Amino acid sequence: MTLMVDDELSLVFSALADPTRRAILARLARGDATANQLAEPFAMTQQAVSKHLKVLEHARLISRTRSAQSRPCALDTVRLDAAASWIAEHRRVWAERYDRLDEHLAALRGERETGHGR
Amino acid sequence: MTLMVDDELSLVFSALADPTRRAILARLARGDATANQLAEPFAMTQQAVSKHLKVLEHARLISRTRSAQSRPCALDTVRLDAAASWIAEHRRVWAERYDRLDEHLAALRGERETGHGR
Repeated sequence: MTLMVDDELSLVFSALADPTRRAILARLARGDATANQLAEPFAMTQQAVSKHLKVLEHARLISRTRSAQSRPCALDTVRLDAAASWIAEHRRVWAERYDRLDEHLAALRGERETGHGR
Repeated sequence: MTLMVDDELSLVFSALADPTRRAILARLARGDATANQLAEPFAMTQQAVSKHLKVLEHARLISRTRSAQSRPCALDTVRLDAAASWIAEHRRVWAERYDRLDEHLAALRGERETGHGR
């Protein structure tokens, strides 16, 4: 379980709330790429890509090599996993709640069949 | 697989990018609640809660009964699942990529041990 303060999770979800940034992450999931390589398929200016990369880097969804001149970007999955964990956790609570409701309804049906609860 | 246009997914991630809205969803995962009930634990004005609920409703993360005067809120999990799917899908591509890298490295090691590839 990754511990994250609430603000960090907000940064991650906020960074994911843009189709271009999600497309950049989808591209990086297939392999590291430089800002130039990322700009190509989107027909975007270098400046626009750079802005998106900064948001993704700030949310720690990507990491960039500091030393190399081309500074290739790599997907950093720790925060992505934490975001998925948050959703899964609350989805699980919700599902359990409905499992309990199902059990309760099944119990009620059982009572009705055996003549109890009337 | 739920089909969603990009903008809908952006709305979902954007709605999740706020700690109070995530706390509201966490509360609703445990059971439906009215706006009044939701406002209590957060020490928020009715107006502030109402604003958050509108964002969640617009992203279709919650649904509200139109008829009843109290208009209880319920978690709507379809969009939440779609958001989780997006993350899981790209996480999978990334993981497969590293599995392939592992296989490649294992193959290289095998070659080295048998004297090939030198």
